[in-house]
Order: sequence, then C-alpha cells, then structure tokens
Amino acid sequence: MSDAPSDTAGRHPGPLDDLLVIDLSRVLAGPYATMVLSDLGARVIKVENPAGGDDSRQIGPFKEGESAYFASINRGKQSIALDLKAPADRAVFEALLARADVLVENYRPGVMARLGYGWPALHLRYPRLIYAAASGFGQTGPDAHKAAYDMVVQAMGGIMSVTGWPGGAPTRVGTSIGDITAGLFTVIGILSALHDRARTGSGQFVDVAMLDGQIAILENAVARYAVSGVAPGPLGARHPSITPFAAYACQGGHIVIAAGNDALFAALAAALDMPVLLTDPRFASNAARSAHAEELAALLEARLAEAPPAVWLPRLEAAGVPCGPLQNVAEALAHPQVRARNMVIETAFPSGAPLIAAGNPVKLSGHHDPASRPPAPALDGDRAAILKELGLKELGL
Amino acid sequence: MSDAPSDTAGRHPGPLDDLLVIDLSRVLAGPYATMVLSDLGARVIKVENPAGGDDSRQIGPFKEGESAYFASINRGKQSIALDLKAPADRAVFEALLARADVLVENYRPGVMARLGYGWPALHLRYPRLIYAAASGFGQTGPDAHKAAYDMVVQAMGGIMSVTGWPGGAPTRVGTSIGDITAGLFTVIGILSALHDRARTGSGQFVDVAMLDGQIAILENAVARYAVSGVAPGPLGARHPSITPFAAYACQGGHIVIAAGNDALFAALAAALDMPVLLTDPRFASNAARSAHAEELAALLEARLAEAPPAVWLPRLEAAGVPCGPLQNVAEALAHPQVRARNMVIETAFPSGAPLIAAGNPVKLSGHHDPASRPPAPALDGDRAAILKELGLKELGL
Repeated sequence: MSDAPSDTAGRHPGPLDDLLVIDLSRVLAGPYATMVLSDLGARVIKVENPAGGDDSRQIGPFKEGESAYFASINRGKQSIALDLKAPADRAVFEALLARADVLVENYRPGVMARLGYGWPALHLRYPRLIYAAASGFGQTGPDAHKAAYDMVVQAMGGIMSVTGWPGGAPTRVGTSIGDITAGLFTVIGILSALHDRARTGSGQFVDVAMLDGQIAILENAVARYAVSGVAPGPLGARHPSITPFAAYACQGGHIVIAAGNDALFAALAAALDMPVLLTDPRFASNAARSAHAEELAALLEARLAEAPPAVWLPRLEAAGVPCGPLQNVAEALAHPQVRARNMVIETAFPSGAPLIAAGNPVKLSGHHDPASRPPAPALDGDRAAILKELGLKELGL
Repeated sequence: MSDAPSDTAGRHPGPLDDLLVIDLSRVLAGPYATMVLSDLGARVIKVENPAGGDDSRQIGPFKEGESAYFASINRGKQSIALDLKAPADRAVFEALLARADVLVENYRPGVMARLGYGWPALHLRYPRLIYAAASGFGQTGPDAHKAAYDMVVQAMGGIMSVTGWPGGAPTRVGTSIGDITAGLFTVIGILSALHDRARTGSGQFVDVAMLDGQIAILENAVARYAVSGVAPGPLGARHPSITPFAAYACQGGHIVIAAGNDALFAALAAALDMPVLLTDPRFASNAARSAHAEELAALLEARLAEAPPAVWLPRLEAAGVPCGPLQNVAEALAHPQVRARNMVIETAFPSGAPLIAAGNPVKLSGHHDPASRPPAPALDGDRAAILKELGLKELGL
C-alpha cells in the first residue's frame, strides 16, 4: 500500500512487503511487534530520540559495547533520529507518516497527544494510517496514565500466582512474557485493521495493554476460578487438570511426559511395564489421575529412577507417548528440529559483528524463510538515505 | 470474502466479520487461534469428530458435566460433527471448504493428507483457501511426525530452564504458554496470508510449530547465550539484566518494583528515603545494579519490611516508579483497570449456563468491544442450520 520506494537494506520478500511501518517504540513490546512485522516482509523505520535512541541500546548483554538485546529484536529495521519537538524534525516525521501504512508507539498514554500527534489529529490528516499503541495499562480506565514494565503486569495479571511451587517464593516467567504477549496482540490488531482498511479505505486505532494481554493468557486458571470461586495456586511443573502432564525425575535428570488422554496413559503404562496403573481406580480417568497427581508421580518416579532420560525417551517415543527432554537454552538452540526449522538465524550488530537470534516461527508456503536477517541499525544510521528518499535532502534538514 | 450467509449466533461485527473459518482443531493451540479470530468478528465453524468432539469437552474444570475449559475457549463458535472418512460427511466438509476463507487444524502432520485433504490437494481445488496447521514440531524436520503437548515444548524449548529458582526443581510456566504462543503466531500467519491474498488472489499454507514458538519467546535468554556461550539459568522473580526489576518482600506480602532506568532508580531511592543508594558505586548504573542484584535486594527488603504493600504502593506510584501488587487470579479479575478494559466478559456453557472468561485484548477504534460473547456450541449443535445454509438438507444428510 505504501508508495515509498523499497529500501536497500536487504529485506526479503514476504506477505507484508508492501507495507511501511513507522516505529516510535522502545525496549520490547513495540519493537517485538515490529520485529514480527519485519520478519514477514514489512519495511520498518525506527524513529529514535537523538539522545541515545531506543533505551534497549543501553540494556545488556553487551558485546564490545553493543547490546545484543537491542540487536536481536531490531534486526532488519532502519533508524532515523528525530526530535519530535523540533520543527524541522517534525516535518521529516510527517513526511514519513504521509507514506506510512502503520504507526507503532509504546509511550504512556497522552505523550503523543501532547506532541500534537494524538489519534484524532493523525486520523484527520492521514486517514489511511493505522495507529497502534502498546501501553502498560491501555488508553482507557483508571490506571491508563500509569507506567508499567513486564514485571508489573506479570505480577498484577496473575500469571506469577500460578507459576512456581506451592508454598514457595513468587516466581516470574523467565522471559518477558508481558511484553511479548502484548507485542503479538499488537501485530494481530494491526493486521486486522489492515484487513478492515482493504474494505473501508480507513485506518483505525489499535489499543493494546500489556495487562490485558496477561489476562488473555491465563487460560484455564480463569475457568478454574470461574467454576470454583477459589483462586488457583502454583503447581510446580505439572498441568492443573491433565495428568500425567509434568516433569518427572529420572536417574540423573528429568523428562517431561504428556499423556493427555486415556489411550496415551495406557501406552505409557505399557512402555514402563506398569500394568498396575491401568487397574488402579485412582488412575482410571484423567479426572481421577488429576485428583491423585502426587500419588501417581510417586509411582512413576520410583520406576523412572531406574534409568536415565536417554533410556526412557526412546522407549516412550516408540510407544507414541508425547515426551521430551528438559533442555537448557544451549540445548534448545542446538536441537536438530529447531535447526531444521530455521529457528536460529544469523543477524548482526549495528557494527556488522555477527549475532545469532531466534528465527521467525510463521512459515508460509508462498515465501522463502531466510536463514539470515539484515543487521540492526546504528542510531540514525539510515538518515541520509531516508531524507533523500523523501526529497528532503536539499532542504538541509 | 466468504459468500456464506451470516449466522444467527449473535456475533458482533469486527474487522474480520467477512471471514468464514473452518476449524478442525482440538484442545488448545488451534482453538485459541480461532477464538482470537472469532473475537475479532470471524465466523468460526468447528468441525468435530462425532465420537465425543473436541477432546477439551472432556477436560476439567467441569460445572454440572460441562467443561468450563472448553466453553471459555470456544465461545461464539458453531459446531457440526462430521466423520471425515464417511462420504456423505465429506461432501458436507467440502461444501464448507468451498465457502471458507481459512481452514485451521492441529493434527499431527500427515493426518490430513491421509484423508485426501493435504495442502496440495486442497490448494488445487480451493485456490483462495488459506490453510493453517498448528502442530507440535511443524510440518518439516526430523521430529515432524512426533506428537507434542504444551508441557513437552515448554521443556524442550528452554523456557522452563529460565523459569523457577536457582538450584530448585524444574518449573512450568503456570499456563499453557506453548499452545497459546503457537495460537497467536497461527493468527498472525493467517492474517498475513489474507493480506497477501488480497494482492495475489491465492491462498497459502501456514505452518506453525509449538516448539518454534517457544524459541521465538526466549527473548534475551538467546542474546545472553549468544554473547556468553553459557546457557542462562532461572532467576526466581527478577529480570536478568534490568535491576531493580523484581518481586520484593514487604511487611506481610510482596510488591513488584520495575525501575528500568537511572531516573526511575533515583525516584525509587527518594520515595524510600534511601539516598545512600545513589552514592553507592555498586548501584551507579543498571549494569552495576544487575551485577549486585542480591545486595540491592537485601537493602531494599530491609526497608520494605517496615510497612505493608498498601503503604508502599501509593508512595512509589506518587513518585512515578513502576510498581504493582502481586495478585492472584481472583484479585486480577476483580481489578478496576481489568474491569474497565472489559477483560472479564460474560459467555455461556453450551447448556446456556453463564460463565465468565477473559476478554479480547485487541481494542480497535472502529469496532465495539462487547461485554458478552455467545455461548460455546453443543457438539453438532449447529448441524441443521449449517446444512440448510449449504442447501444440503434435502439430501437427507
């Protein structure tokens, strides 16, 4: 839809390769969303503040002074530094908006309006522009004005209350699931608005709150509360209502077994030579097994303690029982299936130094899934090219 | 895009309200994806096996024999039971596909091809149809044929290795983040393919693997491994590279503090009357604070122990420090901001009995965000209406 000429950053074609995204966002929820859009072919221009740019440039881990965190999330994007309070830079920003399909920001609500770039003003001036705002608490409601980071919404949204061990300390999900979930819902909102625009010709405002996203992923914890009136607690490493569906200790390690129905439970009992499991009334149905999850775990672990994961996993796999090893990040990234799926890609720091990163999990028959992505941009690194494209170079901006 | 007449299930208009989705999926990853599409206006027809239907109808929690788990994820969808090996039912299925925009399934790879419904065959016959398959390991690679459930991909994908406490037992993320992430990437793939179809006229195949999705959300754990060569471990309730960014014990409870930069750290020190924090070289930068996270936590918790969360939270909020209470699911769902954002909606079991569920976190300026959603369907509950619509009733099917 964009009339901007294509850039020369080495982007690969994808289903979104006709789209221009202007990205004011910083750190994670917004940049994660525009990373997903970029991986699917969209051209993303980061508009960064001249005083240091995206905060995540200053968040580790660092390699020779460059943030790997920043580089991994911002691979394949371009950068221009603009002071949105300076008239000359505002002219550049507005020239970009005039060509853009999508604007993404993750400021606290109100910041854009104070700059004169609130949704009503932008919609009037750029009627086809889709404007997506990812914020901590959303654009409406009593807490809209408050700032939030991942940790805050993980705590307030309830996921920490069901993660960890009974009676143990509060436990954070080990990645920034508050930001990432909001980023994914932001992408879904943008793509939905694009679908709508193809019919109506009009852009719309997409309002995604990190806290809302945490509620949306509570899954059966909401259903359990709705039925029982009791807030569920953490369950360690097992599923609340499917059993056996947990990590179990073996000789020298752990494996995960996910026998989600009666047929798989029967296959598990056979593979472990434990026919007694099938005649014990405590384990006669999934509901019964879930009510006796600890007794079942004790029996399973007594048997599993006789051999290491390398013995049990092939035996369970041969029996068709879903199972798997407990892998650390190094093992996960080296796993043959992960490699075969191109989920570890090559990209680069702004300096050009190489970096590996997680790949794009959306595999499409109509598009090649590249094994490398262009580098993350240096702050303001694409200024000259972008100004030239916009025909603004001669103005000396 | 669909030429099917609109149903009478009380769906609300949304950006996707011109779409017909045929849904063969069961339990969670696929049904979660089609729930998101349905919440955004798409018409979703579940095609269930006549022998019991979607497995999640038999997964608790139950209320008077009906699964709240099934009902919450399948609200607003329709159901028809079809035996895809029976010629008469295949004719109904094919009539549905002829009108559909999107087909979603989450079988093991190969199942659809054995039914004669593999992607090449369907693409030839229904060239505009988008076919999305969400599977455990994806359609390609050495493990493509294996089954996986959430627990397996959480373990293999690495998120369990960074969740929990150092030296503690393996810990599962307390919701089915393996399924949910795959569901969200499936929606993104479908919407990207719809965007592409508007240009090309052609549908495509969307291949999403639950394991791939887990790699995609490892976030800075991948960056830390890429830079250090060391697999990161769990960190309890703190962020790995932003400090202070954790849950801290207070008098009688915990609060979360997320002071993500130097200015917020200074505001925190002032709000706690701890100016010493600002002159201590161990805490002079985010990198220094992250290297001394435990010493900082000890100092903060000694101070925080002097008062309960109800004292600290308003004080930190007034100072502009991102913070929040650690809430259980009951507290999260009752929170005024969550309610104000319409994140707790009314829906119903197939019987019509009321049920609350998490709302739709994608708020769009162009569409109303309803406070209630139609019930989940009874198995085969929409058969007569669908057959009539398809003009097949007279065949006695």
